[in-house]
Amino acid sequence: MKVFREIGELKEYLKIERIKTAKERKFPKTGLVPTMGYLHEGHASLLRRARQENEIVVLSIFVNPIQFGPNEDFERYPRDEKRDLELAEREGVDVVFMPAVNEMYPRPTLTKIAVGELTDRLCGASRPGHFDGVTTVVGKLFHIVQPSSAYFGQKDAQQAAVIAQMVQDLNFDVRIVPCPIVRESDGLALSSRNVYLSEEERKAALVLSGSLLKLESDINAGGRVTAGEARKGLLESIQAEPLAVVDYVEVVDFPGLAPLADSEAIHEAEGPVLVALAVKFGTTRLIDNVILNKKGE
Amino acid sequence: MKVFREIGELKEYLKIERIKTAKERKFPKTGLVPTMGYLHEGHASLLRRARQENEIVVLSIFVNPIQFGPNEDFERYPRDEKRDLELAEREGVDVVFMPAVNEMYPRPTLTKIAVGELTDRLCGASRPGHFDGVTTVVGKLFHIVQPSSAYFGQKDAQQAAVIAQMVQDLNFDVRIVPCPIVRESDGLALSSRNVYLSEEERKAALVLSGSLLKLESDINAGGRVTAGEARKGLLESIQAEPLAVVDYVEVVDFPGLAPLADSEAIHEAEGPVLVALAVKFGTTRLIDNVILNKKGE
Repeated sequence: MKVFREIGELKEYLKIERIKTAKERKFPKTGLVPTMGYLHEGHASLLRRARQENEIVVLSIFVNPIQFGPNEDFERYPRDEKRDLELAEREGVDVVFMPAVNEMYPRPTLTKIAVGELTDRLCGASRPGHFDGVTTVVGKLFHIVQPSSAYFGQKDAQQAAVIAQMVQDLNFDVRIVPCPIVRESDGLALSSRNVYLSEEERKAALVLSGSLLKLESDINAGGRVTAGEARKGLLESIQAEPLAVVDYVEVVDFPGLAPLADSEAIHEAEGPVLVALAVKFGTTRLIDNVILNKKGE
Repeated sequence: MKVFREIGELKEYLKIERIKTAKERKFPKTGLVPTMGYLHEGHASLLRRARQENEIVVLSIFVNPIQFGPNEDFERYPRDEKRDLELAEREGVDVVFMPAVNEMYPRPTLTKIAVGELTDRLCGASRPGHFDGVTTVVGKLFHIVQPSSAYFGQKDAQQAAVIAQMVQDLNFDVRIVPCPIVRESDGLALSSRNVYLSEEERKAALVLSGSLLKLESDINAGGRVTAGEARKGLLESIQAEPLAVVDYVEVVDFPGLAPLADSEAIHEAEGPVLVALAVKFGTTRLIDNVILNKKGE
């Protein structure tokens, strides 16, 4: 496993590897898993998928300052290089790219990639500018690594939708592969930010996966639930938990992210439906979601 | 010479060509000359430079609607496919890409690439949104063609600066090659829009190159001219021409595009200085410029 901290060296290495392995007039496939590090089983599942599908697997680890708001957790975002490299090695990663901030932004970027509409909602409404920071850094990583496929967790369902839209609109030559949420055995969606939770908050946070998965099983069992009922039911059960402070609970189409009308039955929607929420426990903001009504996919 | 109107077919062709010619572990160089067609000697000079430097030369011809304002000349912008293809053939172009609008924008793009600061000034001030349209379509073309070098005329000096900034900020793997302005024998800078000019306007428009080139020769001859004097002198000589309506006359550093103070002598500036102007003759807006004080380059 090779570890690079400089863009030029990474690009040179990838170029030579690609030429070496361009056998029989076929280029090797490169899979990129972009992360902010502090890796968990969710990231590992992305790496495994990438390993299955590509000759070269690149993991990037970069806590991207421009996707954090001024009062967010950029400084205290958890970091553990040594553990991350061990996990990467274990998952058979070929190349780890872990640049410093001034390698990615030697001067403040004047250029932004911005996706409209999809980014006004859900997390975009609570975190202005967040998705511009995400699309800009992902665009940079795509240009540096030139992957054939890139792997994103569905826990950040809006992020996956926004990046897929960017790729389509700008004709990036990259296949976006969304991968299922990985959960703890008690249901909590894996997140690097879970480390912030106190024991009590950790227990209280189970209300998120608990209520989402209950809704999912109700609907899979054939229940007729309207978008309005789903919103109201989720809000009630989350607000019954004293430590939970709701940021949003939304029922939207996917990947378009337009809200369903209150009266619309989820299982009668034309395509997949995303039920997504963001809830604070203490200073820790958690997100979780389920995608329902996948029959049309 | 191959002509493609569809993105998928172009990409497939380029992929196969690249693999075929990836001899001795070296990829062929691809040069892209992005244009809006109605080609003239200025474009031909870009194609010649690209031909000298690359194994594969791609010419794109696309009148990009999203870089035109609502009251600009998108509809009447001159087009002549047959003549363009003849010129391309003559210049040894390998591939012409001439997509229809709905091939490039099958639906309105939600995604934009925007460069800040550099685009607030000069043409950006008169044409809000113009450069976002330029950077977005150039980004798309870079993703579709994946050139190693791309060639831009210095007549659009601000455009070249904005695109170079975009490439640097977003880590595009493309070398930007700015190429000198090509002029008619009487000095008029070549432009597809010159075809709009009446005979009288065409004659009046010579005041632009006339006054710019006089300033250039004064300074090259060792004259001490301040930015303020240059602005004032240019304004006076252009305004002496009754058909000319000045949009702007600016003296800025290059490629940063920050205005020089009135008292600053052009030949004492730290780096290159761009003297740029936009002037209307009837309904036709022309631009022209010279880059001075190139000693530091």
